[in-house]
Amino acid sequence: MIKSLGAKNYKYANRGMTLEADLEATNHFYLVNDIAVIYKKPTPITISKVNYPSRLEAVIKEGYFRTPSTTDYNGIYKGKYIDFEAKETKSRTSFPLSNIHVHQLKHLDMICKHGGIGFLIVRFTTINKTFLLTHGDLKEFINNNDRKSIPLTYFENKGYLIKDKYNPRTDYIEVIDNLYFGGMP
Amino acid sequence: MIKSLGAKNYKYANRGMTLEADLEATNHFYLVNDIAVIYKKPTPITISKVNYPSRLEAVIKEGYFRTPSTTDYNGIYKGKYIDFEAKETKSRTSFPLSNIHVHQLKHLDMICKHGGIGFLIVRFTTINKTFLLTHGDLKEFINNNDRKSIPLTYFENKGYLIKDKYNPRTDYIEVIDNLYFGGMP
Repeated sequence: MIKSLGAKNYKYANRGMTLEADLEATNHFYLVNDIAVIYKKPTPITISKVNYPSRLEAVIKEGYFRTPSTTDYNGIYKGKYIDFEAKETKSRTSFPLSNIHVHQLKHLDMICKHGGIGFLIVRFTTINKTFLLTHGDLKEFINNNDRKSIPLTYFENKGYLIKDKYNPRTDYIEVIDNLYFGGMP
Repeated sequence: MIKSLGAKNYKYANRGMTLEADLEATNHFYLVNDIAVIYKKPTPITISKVNYPSRLEAVIKEGYFRTPSTTDYNGIYKGKYIDFEAKETKSRTSFPLSNIHVHQLKHLDMICKHGGIGFLIVRFTTINKTFLLTHGDLKEFINNNDRKSIPLTYFENKGYLIKDKYNPRTDYIEVIDNLYFGGMP
């Protein structure tokens, strides 16, 4: 009985971890194993008040969150510039496009135009499935639909399922490698 | 007399502008003219207290500056991943290496290893000269010297002077283009 409980716990170990935490662990794995150098950008903040309790210490006493001008993640893989946004949804059926800002789409347009690899990672948390959708397929959906959300079926048909692994947890580079480099890292 | 005053003002127009402001204007110029997509990363902050005066508003009431794990600037130019750190010094004779963190040097090592273009931009504010030093030449200096600062002469010999222009103000892409792409953008 203990054994099967252990197996069950192992299987669902990732449940409850956020996509952000999984991607942080994944990017750390890529970094220490010399596979890719990809970081999440810090949250942009406008600081309006800072105290200096001592000469070496600064404490922010008032600040506001700014809307990011770009996507959250970027870096390099096999010499190529990588750029993506990552989002979770609790919906079982579709991903609301309100999660992506217009300027983030424009940013991904620019990245692709300049020869970078741009994409979106979406995790449907309730069904525990994570997809990679290329920026090209994201744009195709937006250009050809009036819907305010992308149905799960579009991700199943056009996107690529990112396998849940032990390490790296959310191996999106495997997908990128198959798509753009024709093989394993 | 008015004319010569005007000319003088024009010549010294950049004085007083910080390197950061010049780079922001420069990167904006590259972006809107479709030359390159390069952004400064936001300052990393650990937030420890947030107030919500209303449902839509969040005010940070306590936060601390974190040491960045990477360099400040990255992006894409002609399909290549670009990554650099930019610093000012008031010294007329040398650039103190204490301005660069060890993990930033390691980060640039990784970037170059993975096929990106890594460099340092240093402005000597007192003499109003801005240099680009490739990560290779930066490392060569560090590996072969015990000095805690890089003399101006090293920048003059190994670095590349970035011309002060009207627009783009600090045209480092011109240097990158000559160095890595053999021509004008």
